[in-house]
Amino acid sequence: MDFAYTARTEQLRAALQSFMDEAVLPRDRDWNRIAAGGTYPLDVVEPLKAEARRRGLWNLFLPALRPDEPGTRLSNLEYAPLAEIMGRVPWASEVFNCNAPDTGNMEILHLFATPEQRARWLDPLLDGRIRSGVSITEPEVASSDPTNLETTIRRDGDDLVIDGRKWFTTGALHPNFAFTLVFGLSDPRPDADPHRRHSFVIVPAGTPGFRVVRNVPILGHHSPEGHCEVAFESVRVPAANLLGEEGAGFAIAQARLGPGRIHHCMRTIGQCELALELMCERALSRRTFGRDLASYANIQDWIAESRIEIEQARLLNLKAAWLMDTSGNKAARTEIAAIKVAAARLQTRIADRAIQVFGARGLTDDTPLAYLYTWGRALRFVDGPDEVHLRTIARAELKRRRGPVAA
Amino acid sequence: MDFAYTARTEQLRAALQSFMDEAVLPRDRDWNRIAAGGTYPLDVVEPLKAEARRRGLWNLFLPALRPDEPGTRLSNLEYAPLAEIMGRVPWASEVFNCNAPDTGNMEILHLFATPEQRARWLDPLLDGRIRSGVSITEPEVASSDPTNLETTIRRDGDDLVIDGRKWFTTGALHPNFAFTLVFGLSDPRPDADPHRRHSFVIVPAGTPGFRVVRNVPILGHHSPEGHCEVAFESVRVPAANLLGEEGAGFAIAQARLGPGRIHHCMRTIGQCELALELMCERALSRRTFGRDLASYANIQDWIAESRIEIEQARLLNLKAAWLMDTSGNKAARTEIAAIKVAAARLQTRIADRAIQVFGARGLTDDTPLAYLYTWGRALRFVDGPDEVHLRTIARAELKRRRGPVAA
Amino acid sequence: MDFAYTARTEQLRAALQSFMDEAVLPRDRDWNRIAAGGTYPLDVVEPLKAEARRRGLWNLFLPALRPDEPGTRLSNLEYAPLAEIMGRVPWASEVFNCNAPDTGNMEILHLFATPEQRARWLDPLLDGRIRSGVSITEPEVASSDPTNLETTIRRDGDDLVIDGRKWFTTGALHPNFAFTLVFGLSDPRPDADPHRRHSFVIVPAGTPGFRVVRNVPILGHHSPEGHCEVAFESVRVPAANLLGEEGAGFAIAQARLGPGRIHHCMRTIGQCELALELMCERALSRRTFGRDLASYANIQDWIAESRIEIEQARLLNLKAAWLMDTSGNKAARTEIAAIKVAAARLQTRIADRAIQVFGARGLTDDTPLAYLYTWGRALRFVDGPDEVHLRTIARAELKRRRGPVAA
Amino acid sequence: MDFAYTARTEQLRAALQSFMDEAVLPRDRDWNRIAAGGTYPLDVVEPLKAEARRRGLWNLFLPALRPDEPGTRLSNLEYAPLAEIMGRVPWASEVFNCNAPDTGNMEILHLFATPEQRARWLDPLLDGRIRSGVSITEPEVASSDPTNLETTIRRDGDDLVIDGRKWFTTGALHPNFAFTLVFGLSDPRPDADPHRRHSFVIVPAGTPGFRVVRNVPILGHHSPEGHCEVAFESVRVPAANLLGEEGAGFAIAQARLGPGRIHHCMRTIGQCELALELMCERALSRRTFGRDLASYANIQDWIAESRIEIEQARLLNLKAAWLMDTSGNKAARTEIAAIKVAAARLQTRIADRAIQVFGARGLTDDTPLAYLYTWGRALRFVDGPDEVHLRTIARAELKRRRGPVAA
Repeated sequence: MDFAYTARTEQLRAALQSFMDEAVLPRDRDWNRIAAGGTYPLDVVEPLKAEARRRGLWNLFLPALRPDEPGTRLSNLEYAPLAEIMGRVPWASEVFNCNAPDTGNMEILHLFATPEQRARWLDPLLDGRIRSGVSITEPEVASSDPTNLETTIRRDGDDLVIDGRKWFTTGALHPNFAFTLVFGLSDPRPDADPHRRHSFVIVPAGTPGFRVVRNVPILGHHSPEGHCEVAFESVRVPAANLLGEEGAGFAIAQARLGPGRIHHCMRTIGQCELALELMCERALSRRTFGRDLASYANIQDWIAESRIEIEQARLLNLKAAWLMDTSGNKAARTEIAAIKVAAARLQTRIADRAIQVFGARGLTDDTPLAYLYTWGRALRFVDGPDEVHLRTIARAELKRRRGPVAA
Repeated sequence: MDFAYTARTEQLRAALQSFMDEAVLPRDRDWNRIAAGGTYPLDVVEPLKAEARRRGLWNLFLPALRPDEPGTRLSNLEYAPLAEIMGRVPWASEVFNCNAPDTGNMEILHLFATPEQRARWLDPLLDGRIRSGVSITEPEVASSDPTNLETTIRRDGDDLVIDGRKWFTTGALHPNFAFTLVFGLSDPRPDADPHRRHSFVIVPAGTPGFRVVRNVPILGHHSPEGHCEVAFESVRVPAANLLGEEGAGFAIAQARLGPGRIHHCMRTIGQCELALELMCERALSRRTFGRDLASYANIQDWIAESRIEIEQARLLNLKAAWLMDTSGNKAARTEIAAIKVAAARLQTRIADRAIQVFGARGLTDDTPLAYLYTWGRALRFVDGPDEVHLRTIARAELKRRRGPVAA
Repeated sequence: MDFAYTARTEQLRAALQSFMDEAVLPRDRDWNRIAAGGTYPLDVVEPLKAEARRRGLWNLFLPALRPDEPGTRLSNLEYAPLAEIMGRVPWASEVFNCNAPDTGNMEILHLFATPEQRARWLDPLLDGRIRSGVSITEPEVASSDPTNLETTIRRDGDDLVIDGRKWFTTGALHPNFAFTLVFGLSDPRPDADPHRRHSFVIVPAGTPGFRVVRNVPILGHHSPEGHCEVAFESVRVPAANLLGEEGAGFAIAQARLGPGRIHHCMRTIGQCELALELMCERALSRRTFGRDLASYANIQDWIAESRIEIEQARLLNLKAAWLMDTSGNKAARTEIAAIKVAAARLQTRIADRAIQVFGARGLTDDTPLAYLYTWGRALRFVDGPDEVHLRTIARAELKRRRGPVAA
Repeated sequence: MDFAYTARTEQLRAALQSFMDEAVLPRDRDWNRIAAGGTYPLDVVEPLKAEARRRGLWNLFLPALRPDEPGTRLSNLEYAPLAEIMGRVPWASEVFNCNAPDTGNMEILHLFATPEQRARWLDPLLDGRIRSGVSITEPEVASSDPTNLETTIRRDGDDLVIDGRKWFTTGALHPNFAFTLVFGLSDPRPDADPHRRHSFVIVPAGTPGFRVVRNVPILGHHSPEGHCEVAFESVRVPAANLLGEEGAGFAIAQARLGPGRIHHCMRTIGQCELALELMCERALSRRTFGRDLASYANIQDWIAESRIEIEQARLLNLKAAWLMDTSGNKAARTEIAAIKVAAARLQTRIADRAIQVFGARGLTDDTPLAYLYTWGRALRFVDGPDEVHLRTIARAELKRRRGPVAA
């Protein structure tokens, strides 16, 4: 057992931090100004992407790159502290081609794509030339139970025809948006194995019948790349766009969510550190009733409890990453679920404390705290609500003691 | 001791509820559509105001109307359940001339205005012909300690000259905005009594040097009437615009915050009831893993805990109102502080639970929950942060046991 | 609506408080010393009982005394603030013949006893000449679901034969212990109405086969009157000892638990006030790092939050009492369940804070806090665990919105 | 970074677990029976100690044994998972000579004792032939600020004379109790450096004037070895009994509390695992309303949240141990304080949940839960209250951002 980062990790952390400080942070104001004007800030992002790739800070997230795939070969454990650094600036991950949902999409294309699919969709993704979406959750059903999902994928000759409504398709408004991976019901027989009835299919942007309904606001925030509600109305794609086998939807979704789930958590750690730093700085710079805020015992408690909680969450994150590296995603299932719950709750809690130290300014967009607070709340749904993950953990715990558990 | 509403209160509740159902709620969609388009929905509000006044649902909040002032004479205790009903629609209070900050402004003008000030500012407010703001908190200092406030009010001949920067001046973008009450330092001598150094002055809209800097977003939400940052640059008004005596700022602010503080709390109760209703309806209409959400014990716990907490908060609210009516605002100081803390925390907590039951839709603007959640968070600062009120309560509690408490 | 105690209540509060101060508190040390020595402190209690009765402070809990029953005729609402005062000394209720479980037993005997049962069991209880127990919960089954209870009551000629094991039979070690009310399965047919299968039967102390197995410790505390595990081994009593009809067990249990449930809650309010007073006194008398504990903002927060929570719980308690008085126990079902949950949780929380202010002394028996903390934890089971009451509240809430709720 | 235990650790864990299962657990009932009878169960413990030492499971806690000291040479990181296993049985640590406060005493004697002190006090401790106490905290002052401590150590010729009152001297009732280490004020000059005014002195059992006042109950529990209040009335010992230099009290206390603080935390992890196991077993074996407790979503949430919290606390514990091993106790100060706070709070929280799943049986002594709950509460004071540690963490955090922090 060893809690030190390896020399290589330390080196990458330093390189990434330098790049963030020198190149990314100085463009943050511009990025936000352009985005606020309704344009996606490609002019800010593209040069940074080129430079990041030049510096070897590219596709850091993908543990098992093939020789022909560009990027740095890192384990999940090595990636975690880097994602933490990226997480401090909401738009920074894209600079390193490490942004959701492309990361998860690259993971599953890497695993399941045919050579033709690779050439058309994966390679440009790995190069950062296109963006992609993933369309799983639906507005009309409780999507935390994926067997509820109703969008249909119907075979019609050599084509697949997709009908349904999805939402939270992140990236659908990005100027480079090229396709989305749609999860749908391909086997309508009610008596079929419920985990073999769904499939994934690639739907290119611009396919007739596929359209963005709206950019769904998340606690008042409209992401410039879009968390979109999208409609599929008799959308027709060639059967070659099927990803993996027919009925493999659940298996692919599982593969997709493994590392992807903890990427958000890693970034959360960085965002929590940022909130704690801001909290301390504010506490040191403001006075009430003749004393620094930093001298009040309740504010000291909030600072200390935040530190205690961040330390614990970071360790759990790293442990989950290490377990995925050494024993596989499946063996790490409880740890992944655990950090998923812990990290999302933590972000809201720490941002909440920091806001309270800031006073009303904490509610404004003068600081990142309003974003951290509301996005932290959203994280409690991203990749599944807390309750689904708690249920997973509890059932595993109970199973260790006696056979399977009912409902 | 009696926990029943009086017959008169029940009658007013019924009348108000009918009016809300028949007249207000049917215009909610329009109000929001117009506001989203960047226009204040006066066309929706003004006819409703006329009708509300016709029905005797006017200025319900002002306990001690004078014979020449229009409105229904209600105690705080009678008003509370009505504010609860109004609170369910964020813009409804204005229909009844019961919206902040005009309510608080009417209260203090009613108490402190000269006959000329009454005629020019209070009478049109009581008639709902104009809107007003109040400018106390400042971006550059920790305003929870009001002795920190730095905006200056300097006498220059027969004029007062105001310099400074304020924010969260609600209403400054309303089309009927006519003036704001500015709290500033009128006695710069550092050795003067710290609670006699500040005054209130009336600054009319359009006075040279007084301008709106920006509409400050609150957790991403831009209010159509504005929670504005405003600048006062050598703003010159006649000395007759001074409200009350010079140095009476603290005394007036105290008077202002009494009933005003619990109006928000009363509305919060209504908003919490709304969130609980939505939570129940969603739990009854969604299924996961073969069962209604409503049948899950964790969701049942959230529902029950919400009910328990709402009941307690409502009672504390009513008790505070009753105490103000029977013993005066000062005697109710602990109860007012207590409900202020309890209600704001409650709204965020219950909205949070409801969002979790809704799943990701709870984050969108398809339901009122996102607003309730973020506005609930803001309420923890409106009329002072939790910590200031907790300190007030603790010091009173400790004082009951032994003399005054240090720091 | 009126939040003032009536003149009569104020008068009784003053009389009770005087008696507590003059007569009860001075004997507290003796009571505890004698109890610690293994003897029940009857010598302390009996003279106080006589004096309390003389002063008209007797059977204050029973709202509907009959003309031939001794005691003061008080509503639940009038009784609540008195129970609060009694609650401050754990053994004081007995002095006023207001102690559990005799209160609940008197309530149901008052409602359901035959004239013979009245004469033999109720009249001496009303006079405070005997003590009684109630035997419902069982060690071997999850008793929060009473349909699980397995103790049998079998008719055999003119006798009833009881077999089973019960626990938490409070009072079974009291020197005046005369009988217990046993809840058992009288209709073994599995297809019978599950709420008509159980009955209550009176089992006199000394009946062959009825014995105390042990005095069950509660978080290390052995009550001198006993929270006993008791065995019924072929215990034979005359059929005339049946209380009410055969199969009326559930109905009687419901009647029993109405006011009884909130008596504990009323006393809890008094115990919480005591803990808060102690917390304040300690905070005022101790210094660390050069400052009074009372000046630390975290401790001030604990004090203030305790005050906020106590106020709310007291009001909910009074509201539930008022609702029982004006609309009946059934109409108050949600409020009773709500205060049951809120009060028990509150006691542990406030005692916990007070202990933390006291430092390690708070763990010792030098203060009442250790008792308040552990007894508060026990209250979360007394009259049913939190989860049963939360479920009751949630189901009522959901039912208001749509028909009955599954599981 | 590596989260796997080393092969050596795994081997020791297996050996220890076997010994616990084969030798310790079978004697648990006897230990408790004998202790309940008022005798210290030496007859149970001594043979087990001999066997543990034979198996190389001895003095596992002491990272830096000298060649002449008996025991296994383990790092803190290696010891942690072993302490976790020992922690599951409250009295087991003594079997391995790893019990508080002897462990801490051995640590500082190992560092500071003269050869004569080693021979007389340390060697028999290392051999498990005697027991010792440590007397720091005092009943009359807020001991969380050690500068408050008032017991005096006065030089009188070649003697030291000790006067004062201490409590929570654990072990003073153990049959092998041989001495206690007393922390007292040796430099009464008020203007002396406040961290150089105190010293440690060895006071042998039986020294005239040194007596046990009482065995202080901790939430109702009387430890058989005693958490004693002890009096020092003109206690005279030779000056050679001074430990380290005069005035070195603070420095020694710091050294003492380093590893010692996390030993309790390590054991806590084992106790929390035990509580979680019991919770799961109970949930699987009880039914209410037609379903296993284990199938209720609220109980599943408690199980899952317990797992999440235990995992995080264990990792923080191990990280703190690793940091002490690799960088020294001082470098690990924040981590030690953090796990101290987190572990103690965790134990009460998880035991509380487990009690709730057990129902009222959880309050009795039929399970270890009542002990885990009350002892967990006590742990929030052992080695200093939460607030002192939170303050330490906050000040370190604030210092990283700007110079030293006031108050």
